[in-house]
Amino acid sequence: MKNTFGNSISVTLFGESHGRSIGAVLDGLAPGLTVDEEFIREVLSRRRPVGAISTARREADKFSIESGVFNGKTTGTPICIVIPNEDTRSGDYGQMTTLARPSHADYTANCKYHGFEDYRGGGHFSGRITAALCAAGAICISALKEKGINIATHIKQIADVCDRDFGDLDADINKLNKMDFAVLDDSKIGEMFERITAAKNDGDSVGGVLETVVTGLPAGAGEPWFDSVESLLSHALFSIPAIKGVEFGAGFSIASMRGSEANDAFYMAGGAVKTKTNNSGGINGGITNGMPVVVRCAVRPTPTLSKEQQTVDFKAGEDATLAARGRHDPCIVHRARIVVDCVSAITLCDILAGRYGTDWLGAK
Amino acid sequence: MKNTFGNSISVTLFGESHGRSIGAVLDGLAPGLTVDEEFIREVLSRRRPVGAISTARREADKFSIESGVFNGKTTGTPICIVIPNEDTRSGDYGQMTTLARPSHADYTANCKYHGFEDYRGGGHFSGRITAALCAAGAICISALKEKGINIATHIKQIADVCDRDFGDLDADINKLNKMDFAVLDDSKIGEMFERITAAKNDGDSVGGVLETVVTGLPAGAGEPWFDSVESLLSHALFSIPAIKGVEFGAGFSIASMRGSEANDAFYMAGGAVKTKTNNSGGINGGITNGMPVVVRCAVRPTPTLSKEQQTVDFKAGEDATLAARGRHDPCIVHRARIVVDCVSAITLCDILAGRYGTDWLGAK
Amino acid sequence: MKNTFGNSISVTLFGESHGRSIGAVLDGLAPGLTVDEEFIREVLSRRRPVGAISTARREADKFSIESGVFNGKTTGTPICIVIPNEDTRSGDYGQMTTLARPSHADYTANCKYHGFEDYRGGGHFSGRITAALCAAGAICISALKEKGINIATHIKQIADVCDRDFGDLDADINKLNKMDFAVLDDSKIGEMFERITAAKNDGDSVGGVLETVVTGLPAGAGEPWFDSVESLLSHALFSIPAIKGVEFGAGFSIASMRGSEANDAFYMAGGAVKTKTNNSGGINGGITNGMPVVVRCAVRPTPTLSKEQQTVDFKAGEDATLAARGRHDPCIVHRARIVVDCVSAITLCDILAGRYGTDWLGAK
Amino acid sequence: MKNTFGNSISVTLFGESHGRSIGAVLDGLAPGLTVDEEFIREVLSRRRPVGAISTARREADKFSIESGVFNGKTTGTPICIVIPNEDTRSGDYGQMTTLARPSHADYTANCKYHGFEDYRGGGHFSGRITAALCAAGAICISALKEKGINIATHIKQIADVCDRDFGDLDADINKLNKMDFAVLDDSKIGEMFERITAAKNDGDSVGGVLETVVTGLPAGAGEPWFDSVESLLSHALFSIPAIKGVEFGAGFSIASMRGSEANDAFYMAGGAVKTKTNNSGGINGGITNGMPVVVRCAVRPTPTLSKEQQTVDFKAGEDATLAARGRHDPCIVHRARIVVDCVSAITLCDILAGRYGTDWLGAK
Repeated sequence: MKNTFGNSISVTLFGESHGRSIGAVLDGLAPGLTVDEEFIREVLSRRRPVGAISTARREADKFSIESGVFNGKTTGTPICIVIPNEDTRSGDYGQMTTLARPSHADYTANCKYHGFEDYRGGGHFSGRITAALCAAGAICISALKEKGINIATHIKQIADVCDRDFGDLDADINKLNKMDFAVLDDSKIGEMFERITAAKNDGDSVGGVLETVVTGLPAGAGEPWFDSVESLLSHALFSIPAIKGVEFGAGFSIASMRGSEANDAFYMAGGAVKTKTNNSGGINGGITNGMPVVVRCAVRPTPTLSKEQQTVDFKAGEDATLAARGRHDPCIVHRARIVVDCVSAITLCDILAGRYGTDWLGAK
Repeated sequence: MKNTFGNSISVTLFGESHGRSIGAVLDGLAPGLTVDEEFIREVLSRRRPVGAISTARREADKFSIESGVFNGKTTGTPICIVIPNEDTRSGDYGQMTTLARPSHADYTANCKYHGFEDYRGGGHFSGRITAALCAAGAICISALKEKGINIATHIKQIADVCDRDFGDLDADINKLNKMDFAVLDDSKIGEMFERITAAKNDGDSVGGVLETVVTGLPAGAGEPWFDSVESLLSHALFSIPAIKGVEFGAGFSIASMRGSEANDAFYMAGGAVKTKTNNSGGINGGITNGMPVVVRCAVRPTPTLSKEQQTVDFKAGEDATLAARGRHDPCIVHRARIVVDCVSAITLCDILAGRYGTDWLGAK
Repeated sequence: MKNTFGNSISVTLFGESHGRSIGAVLDGLAPGLTVDEEFIREVLSRRRPVGAISTARREADKFSIESGVFNGKTTGTPICIVIPNEDTRSGDYGQMTTLARPSHADYTANCKYHGFEDYRGGGHFSGRITAALCAAGAICISALKEKGINIATHIKQIADVCDRDFGDLDADINKLNKMDFAVLDDSKIGEMFERITAAKNDGDSVGGVLETVVTGLPAGAGEPWFDSVESLLSHALFSIPAIKGVEFGAGFSIASMRGSEANDAFYMAGGAVKTKTNNSGGINGGITNGMPVVVRCAVRPTPTLSKEQQTVDFKAGEDATLAARGRHDPCIVHRARIVVDCVSAITLCDILAGRYGTDWLGAK
Repeated sequence: MKNTFGNSISVTLFGESHGRSIGAVLDGLAPGLTVDEEFIREVLSRRRPVGAISTARREADKFSIESGVFNGKTTGTPICIVIPNEDTRSGDYGQMTTLARPSHADYTANCKYHGFEDYRGGGHFSGRITAALCAAGAICISALKEKGINIATHIKQIADVCDRDFGDLDADINKLNKMDFAVLDDSKIGEMFERITAAKNDGDSVGGVLETVVTGLPAGAGEPWFDSVESLLSHALFSIPAIKGVEFGAGFSIASMRGSEANDAFYMAGGAVKTKTNNSGGINGGITNGMPVVVRCAVRPTPTLSKEQQTVDFKAGEDATLAARGRHDPCIVHRARIVVDCVSAITLCDILAGRYGTDWLGAK
């Protein structure tokens, strides 16, 4: 269904970078959930830290909840959130460029939409659309929190600099959810900034890895086969521009383990079934096992560069060169982090609502 | 929709390891496509090489096409393929075991199905169900081939032994599609066998990585956001038991590249737009760019081991130990390879039929 | 999704009249529901009364539950039911007829499937496929019954002969569910038979109206707009061949009522909210109000006639005449009745499972 | 999916009567279609004729196209149309009423949303939401027209006054699409007005029947079984509040016909296959046969009356009486007419895009 995702709870996206607005319709949430506009604002601000690398807070996108919230609570009907586009300088784009930015969607959009695409600022392919995902996701994050389900993502890696692994999950989640540049080991921040700045100075960009953990999920959610938790989460996560890999638990590193090493031994702990390791990332046979869900996403370096690149003019059918003008993020890893949280939260709400019914998320 | 996947073309799975049969319903394929039962048989046999490591051909699963094929051609209506379960020794399973195999679905199935699950041989979670996916996928592979779209998967890695990278794609695809143990560099086969045998002798297992390439896809298929080619392919691929990671193009390695290195420079070649590298795996903005689609899957080592493992008796709520009896695959990477091909083929048929209409796949 | 319907609980159909088998995959039902094969047999037999008008029981279709049922209970995984085609005399159909039966699907199937359709006996368009719907529906009828939700359909009208209206619903439902030719007023049966026989003797056919009632549904199920109970039920009911009209409550007769007459006044009865009339058919704003759901379906007279009809040879592109040979039902109203029950039961199970979660139907 | 409908082309609704705005997201339309804002305005004005019965034009709802249209053409990405709510006098609704309007959604909304629903002016159940459907539908009507597919609806009946049947379809469609009060036989308008006025004077309301015709559809669109043209159209039409019956072709009257009378004899006309009658309403076996699609909808009389009605206070659990204050439409049949056109157009675009691919609607 193209711009709609989800079964019991779904999200529909719309908008272009330089159109009137972007937005999302979030449908199927239980009635009676508190909608905290201040928290939505905070989440949106996380997507837009000042410049590339500063943690000083920048004003978040202004948004308007058009429907589905009444007296500060969800009504159970669709929540439409609109984020107007301001200061879009659309004059700058008076004429369509037919120079395809390498590894960007300019060329494929043209193949698909035959030149009718809104090419300004990436149009519907712009990372800006993720602001709408974040607004919708913020409501889902709050809803999950009310049920004791917590989610956080850290910057596992930028360029060649790696953060430490998750340790005490409650403390780590708490820490991360207060940070704009979400790193567990503060001593790594400087190095990561250095890599971003160096790339920027070269007119280049860097990528990284995001690692997400979700605690408090009940065992028994998800489905074998096509609606496995992995299937649904990866479907949603790969929707985020720049994500080129998704792995759960030990992920690709499981390939070189032996079974006896990879398997997560079960044990009883205070009447509950737990596992000693979590190489399965909290999911067995597509279904949650009650351990934290762990997922990592590979984020490509921003494709738009001020450095000159070889490309084609796809209208003229000729080779060409291109150097992007204006400001461009030399790194989007730290910004993509909150998008990953939000997209995961929406998907998990959907899985849980399907499993336990419409009202479960709202029940006290 | 749980056991159904796809929009324009969909597949529905059913069956348990020790029930009467397993099967799949493949719906939405164009009328008039040739259905080659011999090829389906070949694909099914690829899923079942003799023992763990021999390439000698074993008899494939017997299957029966119940519907949707008439005079050797698709009718355009649902194709149901049933594979009867034979020789299932169900007597061995007279009593449910409540000892959860670590990292297997025994425990999560019990959480979800409350003890009503068919626990025999893994029930609906059994890898055996992938035979149905393969039968359906074989038809899709043939359909794609008729349109000049070719697909092949090689064993990129088993344990610590790696195959060479793809080179001449036409030749490599051709070679792989004749092999049971699909490795590009024949000199690696012995080493891989050695790792499998060693694990087997230890009552243990090994995992690996599968790498798939698809050539001949038109540029402009897929959607931005939720129906991106990455989203749909990963959704389908993570449905395969044992897959714990999926990455496209450069995948996780893109995290440590700079943009100038990661970006795929466009150039004109004989009137067509191509890219010099393919770190994007043939997909920009969720849409095919005409270059080969490249996807890799991490395959976990088989969780069922004859080695003793720590676990719980989830009925008694007690710690326990477990050593699986009987034969168990010490490695499923080489068998999962054809499942990856099949699942990818089904998904790509769906994407193409949605883009170009019902009849496109059948048009000459 | 073509041959799959439903969100939380879905049914997938396959098969052709003269293929190997027909069948259905019912997915998403709660685990632990009793599957009574004898009841499925009874339901199937209701679809096939001897000849056109006799109530003497004919042998039901033989069916085989391939999956999803273990020890007599649903497992929670897909239930595939296969009904083999026997005695199909496929030799009779050695050559495709290109004479389109008026108001049958011969011509439209050819337009859609370009001559690759299995034309034998109506192929995938055959009413025989409804046997698969009935097998799946029988399980849903039983599941609903366990939750105190009962469903029954009577022959409201055949040709110009009308049955009485529903009265004491419990008694009426009880009575109908024991009958093959389901009429509330027994004195009308003779007259209805007479109309059928007269048509048969003329090489002609008759139609009618079916009226269904569902009691015991909780208030608050269904959705405003696209997933209204009316939307979902009508979607499913119009899938049944020969249905050309669907109406709820007062239906088309509401057009000539005034609001004060059409409105169903609420009142309290023993602590529960009820309505004095039920012109809304138990549904307000797309959502159940706790009153019985009432729906009527118009059933066309069988289009296949032994009487000569004007038609075209769509291959030759010439006018032609056609008189069908062999036995043809002069009336299918009484047979369609159980199909309506079954399709309604599947749809209501889906609505309820979505509203109250996966396990609700199975909870005691 | 609750507030989203469609497969290849989908529409998502949001909004409440007294919230900030209502709107729709229309996704999947081909790129390059002309979007005529003036025509959207005209369609919206048809939904709001002055008062109940005047044909003098009232200002249409103001709308804003937020996305998906660029330089007056569709881009191929989601079109979000927002219609702000103005002059909503929300002060009037300071306190929730717990007196259920008979046959309205007040009570069922409360059952479903537990008191969190936005009760003001009917909230998300308000007929006002249909304005969003109309805005989206207008674009689809234009798109169909470009492909030679025309659609029109007339008021077949109000109270006991009936319009004439369709005659010369091209002329009739042309005539209807210029009218606010769409009746084929102008001499009936006065009588219909009289019925509406009489009801109004009594604090009461009247209902009616709408009949829609669609010409120019290619033969071979739609599917057997669950995606039959009847299934999809009825699903969409029953989403419109107040619709209680949907019938195709001869509809319920087919019940008393004999097969020889009901069947539509095929004949050749200038190389094309046609039928002499159209009792099947252009659909055989769920698939278009190239004849006009004909569908009728029963529209209930408006449930909100100034006349006193018996009801309950569902919070107090007590019997009560209710007489609605303020202005209420004594008839919505003439207003619902354009909604039926719009909903049908959206659904047909979806069916055609699925059949012929994404770009078909936009191809010249």
